[in-house]
Formats: sequence, structure tokens, C-alpha cells
Amino acid sequence: MSVDMNGGGTAALARIRVVLSRTSHPGNIGAAARAMKTMGLSRLVLVSPKRLPDEQTVAMAAGADDLVASATISDDMTSALAGCVRVVGVTARRRELSAPFAWAREAAVDCIAAAREGEVALLFGNETSGLGNDEIALCQQLLMIPTDEVYRSLNLAAAVQIVAYELRLAAIEQGAPPAIAEAGEAATHEDVERLAEHLERAATASGFLDPAQPKRLMQRMRRMFARARLEREEVNILRGMLSSFEKKVD
Amino acid sequence: MSVDMNGGGTAALARIRVVLSRTSHPGNIGAAARAMKTMGLSRLVLVSPKRLPDEQTVAMAAGADDLVASATISDDMTSALAGCVRVVGVTARRRELSAPFAWAREAAVDCIAAAREGEVALLFGNETSGLGNDEIALCQQLLMIPTDEVYRSLNLAAAVQIVAYELRLAAIEQGAPPAIAEAGEAATHEDVERLAEHLERAATASGFLDPAQPKRLMQRMRRMFARARLEREEVNILRGMLSSFEKKVD
Repeated sequence: MSVDMNGGGTAALARIRVVLSRTSHPGNIGAAARAMKTMGLSRLVLVSPKRLPDEQTVAMAAGADDLVASATISDDMTSALAGCVRVVGVTARRRELSAPFAWAREAAVDCIAAAREGEVALLFGNETSGLGNDEIALCQQLLMIPTDEVYRSLNLAAAVQIVAYELRLAAIEQGAPPAIAEAGEAATHEDVERLAEHLERAATASGFLDPAQPKRLMQRMRRMFARARLEREEVNILRGMLSSFEKKVD
Repeated sequence: MSVDMNGGGTAALARIRVVLSRTSHPGNIGAAARAMKTMGLSRLVLVSPKRLPDEQTVAMAAGADDLVASATISDDMTSALAGCVRVVGVTARRRELSAPFAWAREAAVDCIAAAREGEVALLFGNETSGLGNDEIALCQQLLMIPTDEVYRSLNLAAAVQIVAYELRLAAIEQGAPPAIAEAGEAATHEDVERLAEHLERAATASGFLDPAQPKRLMQRMRRMFARARLEREEVNILRGMLSSFEKKVD
């Protein structure tokens, strides 16, 4: 996996709009904007919101109030979806006579592929009633988020969050987690051997290890050191500690 | 994606607890409970919440108020993590001297594998300040959620939602647990803590550790233990060895 350095991934995200239809709670609009922005989505469209964005929207948006401020608000679904080569409806249940279903993960990959060709809309329905049949009829694909079989009650912003997260992962292949800059220098084989020998000496002197019956103590300790992938500085600390134990013995 | 029909996946989810530390807003606790329940997680632990669950918690929980009602509330992180063979911290940024990082997707697969062996905790910090260094030091792994590079401000419940979603997918997709050749029984959180305390005592008594200037010795040692994913028998051996060093001192 390689990090997309030329912005190809974010270019696809910029062609994706999130369309919230008939949203009841202004706070959910803000929370959805925040969810979008964390994943690099920026285009929010509100169709016939029950209440216009208000101070609760801004509060829930946290630092994503710019998405709310630049949101398109319309009573007209046709203009909301204008120019889209793909409309994907997010739904919690199977529908009759509808477009094909896909799980969020696969649908996100499809969306990103479509967004490399043109504009894409993700359509989210009302908090309580979901997408209406007339809205479902506009979709070329339906996206479902896997949930518990009994309790499926995803909050609207939570659904936006998961879909936006999957879109981001599909758009931008992640590299390795950010290198841990200050991960220390790895201990060498000899470092670890000297530590093992030191431990063996100290454990013998203290009476913990009986050289006549060593069992597999040192084998176990070496296996543990190997699994820990010791750093050089850790070896130094451990040997310093062992020396302090030995001095006290003297 | 195939659904695990024999309950093997959900059995792993039942061994995972979500630990919210020092949460500021009661509403977020409810929203987190809802996020958990949609994905089949049920065990919520609250450590030193700034405010106890209240009516706002219940309102945000929607139908997940049973998780809030059965949540464990404690001021004691050790009891919150009791019995865990794996503690995974969710963090937005890299830390010094910490356990290894993994992205949410890979970390979730690891968590499910660990949950087939024993109890697992996902640890989420305060909304504003995240996990403290003392909390980070308890983690065997750190989980990062990929976000926009500029705007990383995930809401707490949104972070819980994404992690819970990845855990669900990992639990249900995953087939039989990989056979672990000759790995011993994993040490629990308490086992490792007792070892760390024992080491600290012994190193202080021997003069190696100056309590007035501890520097970051114990943070380093905990990080090393975390990386090693100690087995219970290894902890017993190391503590026996420490006792032998202490006896000699007497």
C-alpha cells in the first residue's frame, strides 16, 4: 500500500457531495458536517430540511462550520443531484424494486471509481423515516452499513461518519502508520546476548537459577527478548538495573 | 463478506469492553453507547467521568440506554482494565515512548484475534485532551483512525462508531482463529501492572531508580512489556527473579 502523494485521492473526494434530505434536527446537520470534514469531504447539500441550520448546527459542527456556511440548501432534489454521474442512497433496510445493494465498503470503492469520472452524490434520508420511495427511485446504487441484527439505529451523523470513513480509505490508500520518529535504535544480536548472559549471571548469584537444574529458563528469557524486539537503550537500562542488583549483593 | 452464523464472531465482540476515560459531556456517553450497540458491542466502562450519566445521556443513547444502565463506573483504571489480555488505546496523534501504532482496520483484526483468547479493552480519552501519558503507558497497542490531515477533530462517539464498525466487520468476516503454535496464556493487565510495580520497588531499593528523579524509566519499562505481549508464566518468572534479588539485598 502506498500513500497517494499527488492528490489523486483527495481530488476524488472533492467530487463527492453529501445530500441530506428532510433532516429533522439542526444539530445532526452540524454533526454530519463535522463527520464529513474529518474525512476530507467538503460539499454538503441540504434538501428541504425541517429546520434550517441554526446555532445548534454550528455548535455540533465544531470547526466544520465552514461546510455548513457553504452548504447548498434547496427544496428541489433535481437541482441537488444536478451533474451527478452516480447517486448512491444510504439505507438501513432492503427495498423492493430498487437499485442493487452493496455493503458500505464495496460501495465506497465504487463511488471513488465513479468520482474519478464525474460528480457523485451520497443521499441520506430523514432520521426517522429514512429515504422515501421517490428518493430511492433516483439511486443507481444502495449502500447498507452492516449493523447488529436487532439494534440497527444508527444516528444520522454516525452513518455519515462511517460512509465518509470508507470513502476516505477507498480514495487514499493508507501507507504504514506514521513512522514513530523516536522509536529507538534496535538492539543487535550481540547486545541481546550480553543481556542474556548478564541476566543468567545475576540470577545464578541470587540463587534463583540453579546451574545444575537450569530447566529452560534462559531459553524462555531469550524467546521473550526476541518477541519484545528490544531497543539498544532498553538493553542498557536492563543491564544497569542488573548491575545495581548485583552491587547490593556484594 | 460472509456472515458468521454460528455466533463465533459475536462471541468475540462480547469480550470487548469500551472504556471511556474522563469523559466531559454526558451526551457523548449516550451517543457512544448507541454507536456501540449498533455494532453489537455491549460492555461500557466509565472511568472518572467529569459528570455522571444523566438525562442527556439517555436521550443521546436512544434505544441503547440499557448499555448506560449496565455500565461500570469507577475512579480506578486498574479495576476498569481488570482481566484484560489486551489494552488498545485510541489516539489521534503519535506519542513518544508508546506501544506500536496501527490503523483502525488492522488494529480491529488484532483485537478480535485477542478477544478469542481473553478480555480486550478499547480505551478512549477525554474529548479535548485525549489519552494521558499514564493511560498511554497501559496500552499494548495504539489505534489511529485515518483522518483529513488538517481537520482531525473526530467527535468521541464518532470515533467509537468507527472503531466499533471495524470490530464488527473483523469479527464477522474472520474465519477460524489462527492457530498459535506454542504461545502460552497471555498475561492480564493486572499481572503486568504487578510486575511493573515489583520492578519499580526493586530498582528503588537497589538504588538504580531515584524516586526524586525517576525520569521516564517506568514509562519505558511498561512500553517494553507492552511490546513483548508477556505471557503469564513469564511474569511469574520475572517476579520470582526480582524477589531473589530483593532477598539477597536483605
